[in-house]
Amino acid sequence: MSILIKDSLIISQDKGRKVKKGDIYIEDDVIAEVSERISTEAEYVLTGKMVMPGLINTHTHLPMTLMRGYGDDLTLEEWLTTRIWPIESKLNEDMIEAGTRLALLEMIATGTTTCNDMYFFEDTIARTCKKMGMRCFAGFSIIDFDTPEMKKEMLLPECEKFIRKWRGDELIKPVVAPHSTYSCSPETLQKASELAEKYGTMLHTHCSETRKEVYDVVERYGARPLEQLERNGMLTEKTMLAHCGWITKEEVRQIARAGACVSHNPVSNMKLATGGFTPLPELFDAGACVTLGTDGAASNNKLDMFETMKFAALIHKHHRWDAQIVTAQQTLDMATVNAASYLGINAGSIEEGKKADLICLDMDMPNLAPMHNPISHAVYAASGFNVSSTIIDGRAVMLEREFPYFDKQKIIEEAEKAKEKLVSNDAKQSTN
Amino acid sequence: MSILIKDSLIISQDKGRKVKKGDIYIEDDVIAEVSERISTEAEYVLTGKMVMPGLINTHTHLPMTLMRGYGDDLTLEEWLTTRIWPIESKLNEDMIEAGTRLALLEMIATGTTTCNDMYFFEDTIARTCKKMGMRCFAGFSIIDFDTPEMKKEMLLPECEKFIRKWRGDELIKPVVAPHSTYSCSPETLQKASELAEKYGTMLHTHCSETRKEVYDVVERYGARPLEQLERNGMLTEKTMLAHCGWITKEEVRQIARAGACVSHNPVSNMKLATGGFTPLPELFDAGACVTLGTDGAASNNKLDMFETMKFAALIHKHHRWDAQIVTAQQTLDMATVNAASYLGINAGSIEEGKKADLICLDMDMPNLAPMHNPISHAVYAASGFNVSSTIIDGRAVMLEREFPYFDKQKIIEEAEKAKEKLVSNDAKQSTN
Repeated sequence: MSILIKDSLIISQDKGRKVKKGDIYIEDDVIAEVSERISTEAEYVLTGKMVMPGLINTHTHLPMTLMRGYGDDLTLEEWLTTRIWPIESKLNEDMIEAGTRLALLEMIATGTTTCNDMYFFEDTIARTCKKMGMRCFAGFSIIDFDTPEMKKEMLLPECEKFIRKWRGDELIKPVVAPHSTYSCSPETLQKASELAEKYGTMLHTHCSETRKEVYDVVERYGARPLEQLERNGMLTEKTMLAHCGWITKEEVRQIARAGACVSHNPVSNMKLATGGFTPLPELFDAGACVTLGTDGAASNNKLDMFETMKFAALIHKHHRWDAQIVTAQQTLDMATVNAASYLGINAGSIEEGKKADLICLDMDMPNLAPMHNPISHAVYAASGFNVSSTIIDGRAVMLEREFPYFDKQKIIEEAEKAKEKLVSNDAKQSTN
Repeated sequence: MSILIKDSLIISQDKGRKVKKGDIYIEDDVIAEVSERISTEAEYVLTGKMVMPGLINTHTHLPMTLMRGYGDDLTLEEWLTTRIWPIESKLNEDMIEAGTRLALLEMIATGTTTCNDMYFFEDTIARTCKKMGMRCFAGFSIIDFDTPEMKKEMLLPECEKFIRKWRGDELIKPVVAPHSTYSCSPETLQKASELAEKYGTMLHTHCSETRKEVYDVVERYGARPLEQLERNGMLTEKTMLAHCGWITKEEVRQIARAGACVSHNPVSNMKLATGGFTPLPELFDAGACVTLGTDGAASNNKLDMFETMKFAALIHKHHRWDAQIVTAQQTLDMATVNAASYLGINAGSIEEGKKADLICLDMDMPNLAPMHNPISHAVYAASGFNVSSTIIDGRAVMLEREFPYFDKQKIIEEAEKAKEKLVSNDAKQSTN
C-alpha cells in the first residue's frame, strides 16, 4: 500500500520536536519521505490534515469493553467483588474476541496505533489484533488462581507456548504479564521473570495501584510491591509498571536506576478513587521513562488516549498548584516517542525510515480552530473523534472515518450480544 | 418546525430520572409528546438515537475561542499579563463576532443548548447567539476599568440599555455581570445588584477562583469575596457564582441559605492550577444548587460539556478517595435539570410541555457500546462528538452533523482570520 498525505501540518515528534508543513509519503510499512512537497503517485491521497504519530496506550485490558459502565461509582473492592469478578468468571473465547474487536474499533477510531495489553485468553486477543491490524504487545496474564481459560498450573507453560508462537511476528509482540505482587507468589514472579529473560520479551505488571495493596504486600512479604518485584527479578529495563500511584521518592529513583517504565493511568485511578498519584514530576527529574495508559474500559470508561493525555497534564498541575508542570509537550512525548522508544518499536515520530504508525486529524473541526499551537491543540483541545485516518504499519485501518478491513456495525452488534450473554444470569444487572 | 425522534433511548431527567425507550414528537419550540410509539408525520424524522436534555454551560466567555492554545502551561498571572490581557485589549466587534460564532459552532456540535456567558461586547455576543439559535444568558460585564468596547463610566448605563433591549426575548436573557470583587468596587457591585433587581435579571460573577484573590479581597475590604458580595447585595437567589474553589464550610452554608448557585469549572481550574477546589459534596449536603461550566476556551481549551462532566465526576472521587462521591446521576443533574431550574428555563428534562432543548447521540459509536447503563455512558463514556443532532427551542441547529443555518467552514476560516489580526502585532506569538 502507498499513501500520500499532502499539505499537512506535521507534529513530527522528532528530536527537535519540530512542527512543520509539508507532505508525507508512505510506502508499505515505512514513512518513505517527509518533505515540503512530494509529487509521487500513491494509491491513497489525503489532504489538509494535522498529522501526528499514532498514540501508544501502555496499559489496557482490551476485552473489558464488555464491562463498560457495568458498575460505576463503587468502591474498588465492591466493584471487583460484586461486579467485575463475577462477570469475568463467565468469559469465554467468543466473548473475549467480541470485546477485543470493540476495543480495537474504538482505539483505531480515536487514534491509538499501539497497545500494551494484559488479560486472559491472550492468544485470542493477539489473533484479533493481528486480524484487525493493531500493533499489540500482548501480555499473557500469569496469576495464582485458575482463570476462566485454564488451571493456574497451566499458565506458565502455556505462556511459553504463546511466546514461541508469536515471537518474530511484526505486529504482535508476546509479553509475560504476572498480574501483581498481591496475586502472584514470589515463585510465580521469579518463574515469570525467567521466562521473559529466556525469550527477551517485555514484562508487564500492576504495581502500587492502591494503598491497600502496598500495605497488604508489606504485611505478607515484608517488602513494598516494587521491592518485591525487584527481589524476584521483575524490575528490569524491560518492565512496564502500571499505575505506581503509591510509590516513594526512593522508589522513583529505584525505577529510574533499573531502567523500568511507568504506565500512568490517570482516568482509571481517579475513577476508582485509588488515592495517591503517580509522581510524574519526580519521575521526570529522575530520568525515568513514563508513558500513558487508559486501563480497561470498565474503569475509564473509554479508550481515548487524547482524553488520557488531557487528564494527565491537568491533574498534576492541579496537584502541585503549578500550571507549568507536565507541559503539553511532555504529555505528548509520553504518549508517543517515550513509549515507542521503551517498547523498542521504530515508531513514535514522523521521520523518514520510521514505521508508518501515524494518525490524521481533520483540521476543519471547531475545537481545533484557530491554530496558535498544534502541540497545545493535540493535548488540550483535540478529542479522539477528531481523528479521521489511522495508519498502522503502513496500513490505513481507518481511512476518512471508514474502516476498509472490518464492519463497524457488526462489531458493535456482536459486542452487545456478548454482553447480553455475560449478564443474562446476573440478577444484579438492573441495580447498577 | 416539527421533529419526530423514533425508537430512541431516552434519558429523560424527569423527576424519577427514568430512562425509557420510545418516541419523541417536537412541535415548534415544545416537546409535544413522549410515548412508546408516535405515528404523527413530521418534517424531520430521526431514528435510533440516545436522546438526552441539551447540556447547560453556566460559565463561559464565548469569544475567547480566539485565544484557544494561546499561552498554556503558564502561571495564572503570567498567562493573564503576558498573553490574555494584551490580546484582549485589541479586540473589536468583528473579532468578537468571529470568536463567538466559533464557540457556538463548537458548543452546538458537542451538545450544549444553553450557555451563561460573560464578556465585553455582550450585545454583539447576544446578537450572534440569537442569529445562530443558541439559548444564551448574556452577561454584560461590569468592571472598574475601561474595556476594549467602552469607558468604564459607560458600563452601567450601557448595561441598562442592553437589558431594556433584550428583556422579553425568548432565546436571549440579559444578565448583569460584575466581573469580581477584586475588579469591582463596592459601589460598582452595589449599583450592579440594584440594576439586576430593578429588571429582575440574573447576576453572574467570579467568586473565590484563586487563593490570591481571597487574600487580596480580605486585605482590601476586610471581607472574603463571598462576604463582600453579600455586603453589596450580590448574594441573591439569582446569582451565579463562578468557581468557588476557595470557599469555607461556612460559606457553603451561606450560599445555600442565600439560594445562590455555584458554577463549577473543573477543567479550567485544573489547567490554570488554581489550587483549592469547589467542595461539591458539602454543597450538595447543604442543598445548594451546583451547575457546571467550561470557562472560556483559552483556559480549557474546549467547550465540550461532556468532557467537563467527566472531569467533575472524577476529580472529586479522586480528592476524597471515594469512588461513590459525585455519581454519574448527580453529574448529569448538574449539567441539565439543576441548571435549567436555577436559570428559570422550562427545559433540562425530556417531558411533554417542556421546551425542546435536547440532543441526540449516535448509538453506533464504539465508545457507547455495549449498553449497560445510559447514565454512565452519558457521563463517563460519551464525547461531545457522539452528538449528531442538537435541537434548541425546537430548532435543529445541528441535524445529523449538518448545520442547516450556517456555514461551518466559513465560521472556522473567519475565526482564523480574526486570530491572525489579533496576534499580527504581537511579537510573543511564536514563543508559545
